[in-house]
Amino acid sequence: MPQLHYGIGVDLGATTVKTGLVTSAGKIITQAKLPTLGEQGPKAVILQIKKSIEEVMKHAKGKTLRGIGIGSPGIVDEKGGIVKDPPNISGWHHVALGEKIQKSFKLHVAVENDANVAAIAEAKFGAGKRYPSFLFVIWGTGVGGGIILDGKIYRGAFGGAGEIGHVAIDYNGLLCNCGAKGCVEAYVGQRHLSQRAIERLKSQPRSKILDLVGGDISKVEPMYISQAAYGGDKLAREIFTEAGTLLGVALGSVMNVVDLRVIIIGGGLSAAGKFVFDAVKKSVQSHVLKPLREDIRVLPAKLGNSAGILGAAGLVL
Amino acid sequence: MPQLHYGIGVDLGATTVKTGLVTSAGKIITQAKLPTLGEQGPKAVILQIKKSIEEVMKHAKGKTLRGIGIGSPGIVDEKGGIVKDPPNISGWHHVALGEKIQKSFKLHVAVENDANVAAIAEAKFGAGKRYPSFLFVIWGTGVGGGIILDGKIYRGAFGGAGEIGHVAIDYNGLLCNCGAKGCVEAYVGQRHLSQRAIERLKSQPRSKILDLVGGDISKVEPMYISQAAYGGDKLAREIFTEAGTLLGVALGSVMNVVDLRVIIIGGGLSAAGKFVFDAVKKSVQSHVLKPLREDIRVLPAKLGNSAGILGAAGLVL
Repeated sequence: MPQLHYGIGVDLGATTVKTGLVTSAGKIITQAKLPTLGEQGPKAVILQIKKSIEEVMKHAKGKTLRGIGIGSPGIVDEKGGIVKDPPNISGWHHVALGEKIQKSFKLHVAVENDANVAAIAEAKFGAGKRYPSFLFVIWGTGVGGGIILDGKIYRGAFGGAGEIGHVAIDYNGLLCNCGAKGCVEAYVGQRHLSQRAIERLKSQPRSKILDLVGGDISKVEPMYISQAAYGGDKLAREIFTEAGTLLGVALGSVMNVVDLRVIIIGGGLSAAGKFVFDAVKKSVQSHVLKPLREDIRVLPAKLGNSAGILGAAGLVL
Repeated sequence: MPQLHYGIGVDLGATTVKTGLVTSAGKIITQAKLPTLGEQGPKAVILQIKKSIEEVMKHAKGKTLRGIGIGSPGIVDEKGGIVKDPPNISGWHHVALGEKIQKSFKLHVAVENDANVAAIAEAKFGAGKRYPSFLFVIWGTGVGGGIILDGKIYRGAFGGAGEIGHVAIDYNGLLCNCGAKGCVEAYVGQRHLSQRAIERLKSQPRSKILDLVGGDISKVEPMYISQAAYGGDKLAREIFTEAGTLLGVALGSVMNVVDLRVIIIGGGLSAAGKFVFDAVKKSVQSHVLKPLREDIRVLPAKLGNSAGILGAAGLVL
């Protein structure tokens, strides 16, 4: 067996900074959790990141550390490790996060957008290990993603590639939060699924979804639809099958443009059961060009909440 | 001024092989045209290619030749220069075209798909010279394209990237030739534009389009709609504005996924006038994410019919 080496992975989230000491085999040896303190501005946040790194470093004595990787919301400028306009951190416009952490710890530091980091985690340690190239999808509040090509993240010309939530599936369709019409996110994102369930429950009140919210229709959210679907509820399964089918239309377009065959889907809304993956796959296959159809695979992500730490560490491992 | 060097570019078309001796500044010094003889099978076609190369080589005496580039229909395997299943050449399944030409001429040979070759031509010598990264679109019978990233063609995981004609714009829309629903090609390709014009002419018979076909509605084709539009005809302009708007929806999706800002459009249907580019641009802007909007440029291709030879030579220059 090759000698293990180690990396530190920082998952900078909206409410929590999660930092782990990770082996080159993808095992988290120890981790620290601190509040992000985003409302106190960049200085406070950077201090929290440093504290969390110091905490896990106590466990790294005598170990070969390859560096520190950071997954951050917002747009990340590859070269300088500059993080631009992350939501939920007040007063953070452009901050050279990589440089600041590098100066404090004298270690190699890499910073990457959080969706890309989750894609890297699946590539190195998760469902993508066997596939050099795949499309990674996070299906939750919105639809995000990352493109892995030959084991590396594909950043596009300006570092913002992979915005698959804003692939249009109906040129005259629903209005998306981004201001455009017909983005797939407007059809399969969290808010839309709830609305769709609430509408349908009015005519199909015998669904388990209603039981799960104690009969209070205003409390319906995707978590409950997902639970009901997992338990076999017909309406809940219908809603997720439709959503998976629509998601597949957008993913099919992406496969045609980027020429990929494998899709790995994570995020809260992907947990409703295998039938969702089947619906996505069927839809992707009916939308990609013929030579691609046979080889299309649609797989669940494996790493769940650990993807942030693992992928961040994966940036330096 | 740097010393000029030279390359040979072969544009293998369905009916004609066009081969040129090209300078590193993008000038075609001499060219040869021979029938492809696709109906006679691969051997005959390769012989025609060789003859055309020999002919232009007569003019290359004393010049530094960097190699031979070939643009071919079909899927091209990058490494071996293997051309797979080109339409219009009978009995051609997988042929190692690059190797065969290399053996005959003892020069470096590069083979690339014809849409990618046209993209390279615009990147090196045409409208894309100032832009390191852009999306190239050929709008004609169908909708094809190529993605240029940092001056190089982006091939995707399997060499088939850039199939932008098969980006869906309506998940429940028109049936495309490829068998999928709602592909943009089914809305803006040549055949669809003719049908749309024929339908509208029934209620708007005062259009110049009808004059151009001598009143015979069955003769309507995009060339005439384009001519009429160029001359200011209202119906013709309407048809092209709508088509440009729909094309822009698909291109906006692509820009979001690949993170590009510049689109260069060539092909027969892009010639109807500047208003088409304006319509495409407006539509792309309304579909891309906000940070991209200001920087979106939609430009006409510059090289027309020479793109095939120039881009092929560009593969080795």
